[in-house]
Amino acid sequence: MMTPTDNPVRLVAVDAPDQPDVTPALEELYRGFEHEMLVPLWTEIGDLMPAHPRSQAVPHVWRWEALRQLAAEAGAIVPVGRGGERRAIALANPGLAGRPFATPTLWAAIQYLMPGEDAPEHRHTQHAFRFVVEGEGVWTVVGRDPVPMRRGDFLPQAGWNWHAHHNATDHPMAWIDGLDIPFQYATDAQSFEFGREKISPAERVTPERSRSERLWGHPGLRPLSAAAPTPGSPLLAYKWEHTDRALTDQLDIESEGHGGTVEPGHAAVRFTNPESGGDVLPTIRAEMHRIARGAETASTRETGSSVFQVFDGSGTVTVGDSSWTVTRGDIFVVPSWVGFSARSEAGSTDSDSGALDLFRFSDAPIFDALGLHRSQAQVGGGRA
Amino acid sequence: MMTPTDNPVRLVAVDAPDQPDVTPALEELYRGFEHEMLVPLWTEIGDLMPAHPRSQAVPHVWRWEALRQLAAEAGAIVPVGRGGERRAIALANPGLAGRPFATPTLWAAIQYLMPGEDAPEHRHTQHAFRFVVEGEGVWTVVGRDPVPMRRGDFLPQAGWNWHAHHNATDHPMAWIDGLDIPFQYATDAQSFEFGREKISPAERVTPERSRSERLWGHPGLRPLSAAAPTPGSPLLAYKWEHTDRALTDQLDIESEGHGGTVEPGHAAVRFTNPESGGDVLPTIRAEMHRIARGAETASTRETGSSVFQVFDGSGTVTVGDSSWTVTRGDIFVVPSWVGFSARSEAGSTDSDSGALDLFRFSDAPIFDALGLHRSQAQVGGGRA
Amino acid sequence: MMTPTDNPVRLVAVDAPDQPDVTPALEELYRGFEHEMLVPLWTEIGDLMPAHPRSQAVPHVWRWEALRQLAAEAGAIVPVGRGGERRAIALANPGLAGRPFATPTLWAAIQYLMPGEDAPEHRHTQHAFRFVVEGEGVWTVVGRDPVPMRRGDFLPQAGWNWHAHHNATDHPMAWIDGLDIPFQYATDAQSFEFGREKISPAERVTPERSRSERLWGHPGLRPLSAAAPTPGSPLLAYKWEHTDRALTDQLDIESEGHGGTVEPGHAAVRFTNPESGGDVLPTIRAEMHRIARGAETASTRETGSSVFQVFDGSGTVTVGDSSWTVTRGDIFVVPSWVGFSARSEAGSTDSDSGALDLFRFSDAPIFDALGLHRSQAQVGGGRA
Amino acid sequence: MMTPTDNPVRLVAVDAPDQPDVTPALEELYRGFEHEMLVPLWTEIGDLMPAHPRSQAVPHVWRWEALRQLAAEAGAIVPVGRGGERRAIALANPGLAGRPFATPTLWAAIQYLMPGEDAPEHRHTQHAFRFVVEGEGVWTVVGRDPVPMRRGDFLPQAGWNWHAHHNATDHPMAWIDGLDIPFQYATDAQSFEFGREKISPAERVTPERSRSERLWGHPGLRPLSAAAPTPGSPLLAYKWEHTDRALTDQLDIESEGHGGTVEPGHAAVRFTNPESGGDVLPTIRAEMHRIARGAETASTRETGSSVFQVFDGSGTVTVGDSSWTVTRGDIFVVPSWVGFSARSEAGSTDSDSGALDLFRFSDAPIFDALGLHRSQAQVGGGRA
Repeated sequence: MMTPTDNPVRLVAVDAPDQPDVTPALEELYRGFEHEMLVPLWTEIGDLMPAHPRSQAVPHVWRWEALRQLAAEAGAIVPVGRGGERRAIALANPGLAGRPFATPTLWAAIQYLMPGEDAPEHRHTQHAFRFVVEGEGVWTVVGRDPVPMRRGDFLPQAGWNWHAHHNATDHPMAWIDGLDIPFQYATDAQSFEFGREKISPAERVTPERSRSERLWGHPGLRPLSAAAPTPGSPLLAYKWEHTDRALTDQLDIESEGHGGTVEPGHAAVRFTNPESGGDVLPTIRAEMHRIARGAETASTRETGSSVFQVFDGSGTVTVGDSSWTVTRGDIFVVPSWVGFSARSEAGSTDSDSGALDLFRFSDAPIFDALGLHRSQAQVGGGRA
Repeated sequence: MMTPTDNPVRLVAVDAPDQPDVTPALEELYRGFEHEMLVPLWTEIGDLMPAHPRSQAVPHVWRWEALRQLAAEAGAIVPVGRGGERRAIALANPGLAGRPFATPTLWAAIQYLMPGEDAPEHRHTQHAFRFVVEGEGVWTVVGRDPVPMRRGDFLPQAGWNWHAHHNATDHPMAWIDGLDIPFQYATDAQSFEFGREKISPAERVTPERSRSERLWGHPGLRPLSAAAPTPGSPLLAYKWEHTDRALTDQLDIESEGHGGTVEPGHAAVRFTNPESGGDVLPTIRAEMHRIARGAETASTRETGSSVFQVFDGSGTVTVGDSSWTVTRGDIFVVPSWVGFSARSEAGSTDSDSGALDLFRFSDAPIFDALGLHRSQAQVGGGRA
Repeated sequence: MMTPTDNPVRLVAVDAPDQPDVTPALEELYRGFEHEMLVPLWTEIGDLMPAHPRSQAVPHVWRWEALRQLAAEAGAIVPVGRGGERRAIALANPGLAGRPFATPTLWAAIQYLMPGEDAPEHRHTQHAFRFVVEGEGVWTVVGRDPVPMRRGDFLPQAGWNWHAHHNATDHPMAWIDGLDIPFQYATDAQSFEFGREKISPAERVTPERSRSERLWGHPGLRPLSAAAPTPGSPLLAYKWEHTDRALTDQLDIESEGHGGTVEPGHAAVRFTNPESGGDVLPTIRAEMHRIARGAETASTRETGSSVFQVFDGSGTVTVGDSSWTVTRGDIFVVPSWVGFSARSEAGSTDSDSGALDLFRFSDAPIFDALGLHRSQAQVGGGRA
Repeated sequence: MMTPTDNPVRLVAVDAPDQPDVTPALEELYRGFEHEMLVPLWTEIGDLMPAHPRSQAVPHVWRWEALRQLAAEAGAIVPVGRGGERRAIALANPGLAGRPFATPTLWAAIQYLMPGEDAPEHRHTQHAFRFVVEGEGVWTVVGRDPVPMRRGDFLPQAGWNWHAHHNATDHPMAWIDGLDIPFQYATDAQSFEFGREKISPAERVTPERSRSERLWGHPGLRPLSAAAPTPGSPLLAYKWEHTDRALTDQLDIESEGHGGTVEPGHAAVRFTNPESGGDVLPTIRAEMHRIARGAETASTRETGSSVFQVFDGSGTVTVGDSSWTVTRGDIFVVPSWVGFSARSEAGSTDSDSGALDLFRFSDAPIFDALGLHRSQAQVGGGRA
């Protein structure tokens, strides 16, 4: 254990604003503080208690082209197996000191599996999901239930569920993983266990639908055989066909003059736990947004951070003072209390609809559960 | 207001068991009680505080053939319109003194609408649903959203929503209504309001899906445009295709060796509010059960009462000491704490599957909300 | 079981307003209905679906003087023991056909125990409480924990707890019991069990405070030794000294210019379950109201029914079209949707404060849990 | 905004265990990762996903004597006023890199106010409390309600409430502040606002009890005048007399043979929100534990961190591999998943009872709300 006298850190910052005059008595006091492992509030208050959330994380965009290419190179030379567990490459927010954290609470990574490869079984308290922006052929085995993965599918997996991945095809596949690793790391909540060395042959068959989908994937219908509720969603896959249809329906209802959208031209659904109607994971909210051709979202800022991936289409997104043209697969982050808006701008290679589809995940359930959520509409798009 | 001296009722029952000796002093005391509108517990305790719930309602079956024929006759001679409001004919449990109550808490009726007829718009605090055992062509307009009705569809409609019905076809249609009228009557909770005299032309078009289904009918997906939660489900129709598939899926999973059913050969789903995962209505639970050919359910009894309708197939049901062979459309009641079991016995005219499909509704949410639910597995099927 | 053909009741009311013309065909139809145990909605809708709740219960007052005297006479000639269980005499609302029900959901009774008498141990699913308007010396043994009873104390006892009463003094004692017997009777929820024939000597000592009070009777403090929450409050006595002080504090805060009261001169507290902050019993709300000398409450009406007992002072209460001068111990009922207001009018024999203290219990938790609560301020005090 | 090419951090750790062979291709890949702000999971998994929570925070004790003396010196030379806001000196866990954080989620500080001084009014989203280990004479003004502070009192103050402090006496006073500053800093949740420059004369009077206590400080009684629930407790002071009596009562009940304690000789209460029965603050749990003379608590470890202060008595506490003799005022931390036990060992100067009274606060509500709480009984006391 570290002892106070070993402490190499200068604890008290004497260059903060509005400080008492530096006298020999004050210096003596501060040396006393440091000896006893104490830090005064008055030197730290500006940093710790700002008028508004002021994240160290910064707005940033990662391009899908680069991510996929590097993941493919990793696929060629880095094996996947017990120990490393996953061929996952995490987005490291430039403001977060090189930690592999997309935001202070969220982990986002591209995962890559070569033909025939297995990612070994394990479980952890961290809540996780997969989202597939392209390809198919891998399935996740969660609690021995094989769940196929295809473009547009969202696959949540609540903490402490056993899971493994298997690529049953002759081509590699990439997808993104989202987890609450930074949050559980910051709060010292995480546990981890290795699972079986091999999944069984029965788990290697590729069903059209997982058992979880067959039990829970019917709108508004609860199987009576269900046991007591678990912390996360018992539905292990939210298939693209449903998500796409829900978004289309909302825009259709709007065009018939009946509302249904969040704002004009902006349809959106949240992935929810059918047992509770609440967020799909205890610490992670996930949504799909569709911004119709030419539409633009209002700029708002809120507490908590988000990660977006462009699922389809192209457009311009504004995050605080940054503005980027984004297209399929690009990933960007919106830190806490930084304004965000998006505009759909069809590119030459996009689908006919010209809509911009944005997948989003955030730490909002944490803020909701603890009464810390706040939001503000903005006239401009900048950081306050 | 009634005054005590007018009271024609002999309040004190002197013939209860275990009573004090009838002396002049006791008779004088009892006259004093009656004068002051008082009743002693000791003459009533056997009735009021039995060892187990002892319903005045009795097991009873109503045959669909008779119900439909009488409803058709009513269609021919009883008009539907403002005042009477609905051509609905209620099941009156023989134990409940001629009140139109299927059980002490539940109303069940057959409703019948002639070609082109409208049932006028109104609203009430009573929670309601429709269930369609045969036919199609009517739609319910709830909150100005037209909702088509077809065989197997379940249509909940929480209290205080405006609603009307319209038969758009050239043939009559019948369905069943379930409400909590007796419960709200017993607790003096009910309010009622007349709506518009005519629904608008826009509400007379027949959509394939209601707006509510297009917003809320996608598994696990919540529209972000949704306003604050309402007491009942925002999903106004649970289509048969989903219910049927969910039941088939459960039996398939069971046949693959993975559970999924309530008990062997017994699949079941509960209709739930997608906003909460809880019961579809605050006072009414609704479920669909499928008992595979040759299967039989365990006998159980529980607090609270249920009404069942045979949706498909045929079989034998045992309710307390009664046992009936039932077939499509037949309706029967299970009073509180009376044992129930069902056995599927394919008849000559049934569908190929040979399964017995039972629609069930009950007052279970009341018992759950107030901590009054109790149940007991039974060896025999009789009343205790 | 009753069979349809035995049914002596004329099911269909042909004298309701707005009925179809009585033709031979209609009469034939109605005979068909009765044969099949059916009742049309159109003859019943006026009764079942009124514009506002229209209780069969009526406003009524019972005078404490008469209640106590009759209870004392019962004490002299009616034994208390196994079978009758309690020397409890229930208030029978004149509108409720002679049933021993104060309102459609609530039971209110005076209970009377002679010196040295025991009321035997039993338990039931009905939720109950005691409230003491005068005297002391009895204690209730709940779950083997003896709880003393004194003037002003409120003693809840959630369903299915074992309980007995013992009068340890040389004088009789009376108090009132409140239960949800009518509600559980109407819904067929009730179960009952006899307990031990004798309570143990250790339960016959008279502690100053029950164990439940010592564990749970400290404001805002939860014992860590507490097991999983139970349906009702773990605090078995709400002592008058706390209730009185809380009401005095509210009027003091009001006099200091800071609010604190419900309305001018009207202080009130609700008895709550310290484990949840919610109502003290799942089906019964209990409150104490203090109306300062000369103050008057606004008239309101609401769904659900209440029973009031004057704890101290005197005044005039208006319930619908009825108005009574009431004084200590008098009990009156307010049916659903009937307006209520109270005015404090110090009588010659009252305490110095001149305030009117009203104990109230109601079925509000049922209405809250099921989303059925509605209320309305009133200009006049009459029944709508 | 930082750009990737400016990034001075070596993102990829090549010295983690179980790594792929370092080849030119791997080095090239890692350079690619760093250029794109990416970090592989396989180099970080050991740190991020340990078998059990492995906090960077370390067990540590701060001695009250030293804290109070340094605070007094600060009182002499550091002014308190707008800007610095509070003369608060925070405990900096030696494992947390010099940040003024007692644990990764909790702030603990000694605050010191000279005679006649005011700490200016402000509000912040951080949840806070005061706990008084010695002295009296200061009161906190929360929402314009003056709340006196005396030895043993616990004063919660939920986020976004205006508050100021005033020392009305002629002697200085010290107490401890607990807040969730590190948690809200880590999640970017915090907002802050300055209040009035001066509190009003009416807020400078010293009441015996605050208005909040007069409204909410009666066991099990809820004022009907209360508005809609707020996120934190409406009761602004938990007075020592109640806490002390509750602990005494538990040990008495235990001595009478009826349980009531957590384990033999170990009484404990949790400070709860009387509106909900839940934790007193959304992110902070607070408890008082009394370990009777000679008793010892079982060693357990759990997710989440705690800060303890000795309120009275003395004894030995074991935190992981550390063991300290502690006495009145000493403060120590228990990091996540580090075992803890305490033993009461009366010193020569302690009170007659010889009990060890420990005040504890923790981040448990965060873990409970998000389903992350886990605990484990331990045979030994060491870190796993």
